[in-house]
Amino acid sequence: MAGSSFGNIFRMSTWGESHGKGIGVVVDGCPAGLLLDEARIQAYLDRRKPGQTKYSTPRKEEDTVEILSGIFEGKTTGTPISMAVYNKTQRSGDYSAISECYRPGHADYTFDQKYGFRDYRGGGRSSGRETIGRVAAGAVAEEVLKELGINLYAYTKSICGITIDENKALRENILKSPLFMPDLEASEKAEEALLNRMKEQNSAGGIIECIVTGMPAGIGEPVFEKLDANIAKAVMSIGAVKGVEIGAGFAAAASSGSGNNDSFYNDGNGIIKKTNNAGGILGGISDGSDIIVRAAIKPTPSISFPQHTVNKAGENIDIEIKGRHDPVIVPRAVVVVETMVAAVILDLLMVSMTSRLDLIKKFFNY
Amino acid sequence: MAGSSFGNIFRMSTWGESHGKGIGVVVDGCPAGLLLDEARIQAYLDRRKPGQTKYSTPRKEEDTVEILSGIFEGKTTGTPISMAVYNKTQRSGDYSAISECYRPGHADYTFDQKYGFRDYRGGGRSSGRETIGRVAAGAVAEEVLKELGINLYAYTKSICGITIDENKALRENILKSPLFMPDLEASEKAEEALLNRMKEQNSAGGIIECIVTGMPAGIGEPVFEKLDANIAKAVMSIGAVKGVEIGAGFAAAASSGSGNNDSFYNDGNGIIKKTNNAGGILGGISDGSDIIVRAAIKPTPSISFPQHTVNKAGENIDIEIKGRHDPVIVPRAVVVVETMVAAVILDLLMVSMTSRLDLIKKFFNY
Amino acid sequence: MAGSSFGNIFRMSTWGESHGKGIGVVVDGCPAGLLLDEARIQAYLDRRKPGQTKYSTPRKEEDTVEILSGIFEGKTTGTPISMAVYNKTQRSGDYSAISECYRPGHADYTFDQKYGFRDYRGGGRSSGRETIGRVAAGAVAEEVLKELGINLYAYTKSICGITIDENKALRENILKSPLFMPDLEASEKAEEALLNRMKEQNSAGGIIECIVTGMPAGIGEPVFEKLDANIAKAVMSIGAVKGVEIGAGFAAAASSGSGNNDSFYNDGNGIIKKTNNAGGILGGISDGSDIIVRAAIKPTPSISFPQHTVNKAGENIDIEIKGRHDPVIVPRAVVVVETMVAAVILDLLMVSMTSRLDLIKKFFNY
Amino acid sequence: MAGSSFGNIFRMSTWGESHGKGIGVVVDGCPAGLLLDEARIQAYLDRRKPGQTKYSTPRKEEDTVEILSGIFEGKTTGTPISMAVYNKTQRSGDYSAISECYRPGHADYTFDQKYGFRDYRGGGRSSGRETIGRVAAGAVAEEVLKELGINLYAYTKSICGITIDENKALRENILKSPLFMPDLEASEKAEEALLNRMKEQNSAGGIIECIVTGMPAGIGEPVFEKLDANIAKAVMSIGAVKGVEIGAGFAAAASSGSGNNDSFYNDGNGIIKKTNNAGGILGGISDGSDIIVRAAIKPTPSISFPQHTVNKAGENIDIEIKGRHDPVIVPRAVVVVETMVAAVILDLLMVSMTSRLDLIKKFFNY
Repeated sequence: MAGSSFGNIFRMSTWGESHGKGIGVVVDGCPAGLLLDEARIQAYLDRRKPGQTKYSTPRKEEDTVEILSGIFEGKTTGTPISMAVYNKTQRSGDYSAISECYRPGHADYTFDQKYGFRDYRGGGRSSGRETIGRVAAGAVAEEVLKELGINLYAYTKSICGITIDENKALRENILKSPLFMPDLEASEKAEEALLNRMKEQNSAGGIIECIVTGMPAGIGEPVFEKLDANIAKAVMSIGAVKGVEIGAGFAAAASSGSGNNDSFYNDGNGIIKKTNNAGGILGGISDGSDIIVRAAIKPTPSISFPQHTVNKAGENIDIEIKGRHDPVIVPRAVVVVETMVAAVILDLLMVSMTSRLDLIKKFFNY
Repeated sequence: MAGSSFGNIFRMSTWGESHGKGIGVVVDGCPAGLLLDEARIQAYLDRRKPGQTKYSTPRKEEDTVEILSGIFEGKTTGTPISMAVYNKTQRSGDYSAISECYRPGHADYTFDQKYGFRDYRGGGRSSGRETIGRVAAGAVAEEVLKELGINLYAYTKSICGITIDENKALRENILKSPLFMPDLEASEKAEEALLNRMKEQNSAGGIIECIVTGMPAGIGEPVFEKLDANIAKAVMSIGAVKGVEIGAGFAAAASSGSGNNDSFYNDGNGIIKKTNNAGGILGGISDGSDIIVRAAIKPTPSISFPQHTVNKAGENIDIEIKGRHDPVIVPRAVVVVETMVAAVILDLLMVSMTSRLDLIKKFFNY
Repeated sequence: MAGSSFGNIFRMSTWGESHGKGIGVVVDGCPAGLLLDEARIQAYLDRRKPGQTKYSTPRKEEDTVEILSGIFEGKTTGTPISMAVYNKTQRSGDYSAISECYRPGHADYTFDQKYGFRDYRGGGRSSGRETIGRVAAGAVAEEVLKELGINLYAYTKSICGITIDENKALRENILKSPLFMPDLEASEKAEEALLNRMKEQNSAGGIIECIVTGMPAGIGEPVFEKLDANIAKAVMSIGAVKGVEIGAGFAAAASSGSGNNDSFYNDGNGIIKKTNNAGGILGGISDGSDIIVRAAIKPTPSISFPQHTVNKAGENIDIEIKGRHDPVIVPRAVVVVETMVAAVILDLLMVSMTSRLDLIKKFFNY
Repeated sequence: MAGSSFGNIFRMSTWGESHGKGIGVVVDGCPAGLLLDEARIQAYLDRRKPGQTKYSTPRKEEDTVEILSGIFEGKTTGTPISMAVYNKTQRSGDYSAISECYRPGHADYTFDQKYGFRDYRGGGRSSGRETIGRVAAGAVAEEVLKELGINLYAYTKSICGITIDENKALRENILKSPLFMPDLEASEKAEEALLNRMKEQNSAGGIIECIVTGMPAGIGEPVFEKLDANIAKAVMSIGAVKGVEIGAGFAAAASSGSGNNDSFYNDGNGIIKKTNNAGGILGGISDGSDIIVRAAIKPTPSISFPQHTVNKAGENIDIEIKGRHDPVIVPRAVVVVETMVAAVILDLLMVSMTSRLDLIKKFFNY
């Protein structure tokens, strides 16, 4: 039940606060024999690094990962992979204002209610920096999945209400857009809208979409440990996510049976589906089509726009949150969604190896 | 990892297939001392019972629950509460058609892929009848929560794309509407739309909303075991759910920081929020406001409208699914969403008792 | 954490009280495709059935198992197998004495302390009848293991301090001895000693040994989820067990490195060990030798010999526990130990399928 | 299922290899508000530090712990406490001999069988250095327990077959004995015996006993999550432990009901037991008496005495394991047993807060 662990066979346990000594994660249950080094993990972490464009906080955070265990002669050994990102720059500062008040949209109030006090420096454990641990762990999962021919890609689908046109979206555009939007026209419009928000000392939210290709059918357990249920938990556990959809998602609610059902079809090479409203999951189990996941990200709550709130003494006050905040966290959260989905898929994929007695017998050559 | 169990301290393990001997659940971790009998559980099960209106299957299913353990002298003992609904009517039939083909939108194909074969009678384990176990277990949780002043109510927010007007919605209307819609005007329009779908041999989906009142602040664990993350998993694990939202949900993605943040305010009696876009959860922890959850339900996949699909031999075929199917499952799923949310809240509420050393000391009078 | 569930991939959840409607178990995570019916389970349950010899309670308990789910066309489907043993005979009686006092060596006092009250009829949940659920579930595990060439046998090693001579012990004698002792001479002596205990209105304990043959090497996870650690939990969780040993066990504590180490040896067919003080487990992982487990069982606490104790009002009193009690539970517990060990081994064996990336790739034919 | 995590509410996840960058642990679920700093943890770690007497390896290992997260203003925050012991001295060396052969009594062979290869430097993950993580985590648990009036002490009960005389054992002697034996006469005899073993290039095992005082009644969950079952797992998971006993343990097996039952007695201040053969646990639940646990530790397998074994190529060879090895690990393992027992008790104590509805209502002031 410990809140900072996730997964069953493939399990991550994260630690660290925004302004403490560092952030880290222990990955347990990674299969032995994966080629892994810091550079492979760093590539994922760099996608969530701030300061790369004017749409993210100008704070300098190098966020260099160090692997402390679990690798021998360049390969995972099957034992825990401990990874840490130490905070190199001094993160001290004057937190007197923040320590005394409850910022709207933040977890200041709820942490105080739960624990009696909180590490108020930069949000402490509830800071977005917590996602460093997830991304490092999920990156390991994604590297394992690649070895199995399963690939994930995620991108910004919408920001400030401006949504990509699927006909103009190209996977190779994702990294060309400073917002990670695969439709570059939409990306430009979204940048414009975002600049306006910034001028107004305000912030924006958006939608992230993640696609998984190369999925084998049969992954996911019926009833409670469904693939989509676990994805929903993984994605909703990311700070700022307020909604999760699979396939047609909320649009399915307004559709009809004939409009929403995906017909099966044998194209000569095997059974496929003509459409994919199901998002690759039927009855909680992968059907071999692409997995499609969407996450709704709320606008960054830290805005310098004046806000009403209450301080620790219970007095009604007004605050303006100054500092270097992201006007939108959607682009930086893209890799977080992607790696969390990867962690779920690897975990359930390994569990699914035990579904059939004949395959277990074959595995043990009996 | 076993797929048919859910929860940590309060844990349910369900069993049973649509056309087997029955459906049941074992509830473990229910605190001792709750007054409980079959009538209290039956009241919840009756809300998902079919055959009550023309908008649900005319199949007669009495679904009478029997408590087999865990109660002594009218009270829970703290040990497992086993509950069963035995199938009284013969559920045999000619399944030759269904056994050989993969119905679009159903789990026939994925179960075969996962397990090598499946119990094809009425959907077997993937049938909606599986939810009987959840509802019985979640009902126990809801009864515990009532004792703590926490109340849940859920209703149909939208069917066939027709959505309630919040200004016309009244809690007391829920049971007056055959669709469990609290806005009776919208309910009538939805009924009309639904009758049209039925004439077209088609089906409909919709949206369910669940509200939790009386929540204490401080419930939910940071990072992965967040209250919203667990609710998302619980709700997405219900068959036919394709999306989950908390508070403003997907609408938050298009909002701004100033528009989406909820200001804290001290009204003299304590700290409250002026709005509730957060849906009662900040940083994964309850803030004392009402919890607001929405679930998108896809249209019933069983339609007599002709569909293309593939049979077990891999041949492309056309099918018309005859039989007594629900044209919409939303009204019957209302209580399923409500009780699953109850199970999550009770589970995390009990975990939260261990968050602070001073309160643990007080508990043990030390 | 719910106390009545055990296992990870292969998971059992038991329910029921001694004098309630019945006892049962839900087995989740059993691989699909195992031939299974009630007769196969019943054979295990019959080994713990009372009333077969004068050394067990003369109570008539048929304990007939019924499978309620998870089997289709004679094979497991991969979904939960629910099994129940309904109490057929009326189990009412005058419990006024027992309800008011705390029997020494029983859980009456601790249940009252924990839950505030208890189902006092025949021990309720703490009754030895609880093991029916374990045996039924563990029997399923043992049947799966047989398919993989892994076989378990358990027997009474010692009763009343009379221990078998390994040189005279034969596996085929186990069922010939009313005490399940494989050395028939020792069995006769133990019977004699037991009859004396019974005359004295007293009871006896003993030691059970369980051997697992055909184990593949590599089963068990390092550090906390070691094979021996999980076996220790499984066996110690059986009521009346006060000690667990692996291999040389406590005798190893008085041995020396040279005396206790098992030399590896290549006999031409592969690597074996010349001795097996390790009991088949090194570093928590199976080494391919036989697993050897021993459990110490305390004497039956229910004796008609007069005892001092305290009643619910806190008064010091004397009691004589009348009724039909087992003078020794060791023989009936043999199958309980065996099936619990089976459950652990199957669970960890399935987990071990995920240890190596190369074998995962091979499994998915990638 | 990940093997390097232990516990439910209070959960530790360890990482690290003998000769890697370091060893560490993440403790999740520690209640907020405990005064904690590195000095408090270090005091426990120092008890397992080598090089303090001639009976342990003369290797210099400072093993200085660093706290990386979870503490703010001197107190635990309720979020994960990450602790690391970095390897300061270079631990390189010539491992060619060890890398190619399977040392008897070690996990070399089983790791190779499980993972296909292993980190062979100093035992890698299977090294006794792994226990640093456990001790650091368990120390946190023990500090919490002290706040609740629950105290643990452990000591060496037996080494080389020489056992303490309970009448001569004094708690204050424990630290006076280089072997942590509370009977100083026995300690001297054991030292003598140990010196002889060392001369013979051989090693010794022994028995550790752990006592828990101040236990409230009612801790532990019935059936599988019994207090004794969890202690058995915790203790058996420590490397080199081959047996675990509670209370009278294996001796109970040869006793009688009248001899083994502990009478309850009201001494005017409350209900106590006249004897404690149960070791403080009845039906898996604490009865308020002291908890008594014993662990059998096998002789150190690393001996320079010549041994037969097999190398990686499958050839029969002879080896002499040179190097600085502990002739007995029992004294260093004392604190490991103690802290693992502490972790179990705290975990189950927190779970037990949820056993009764009336106490939950009181907790939430409802």
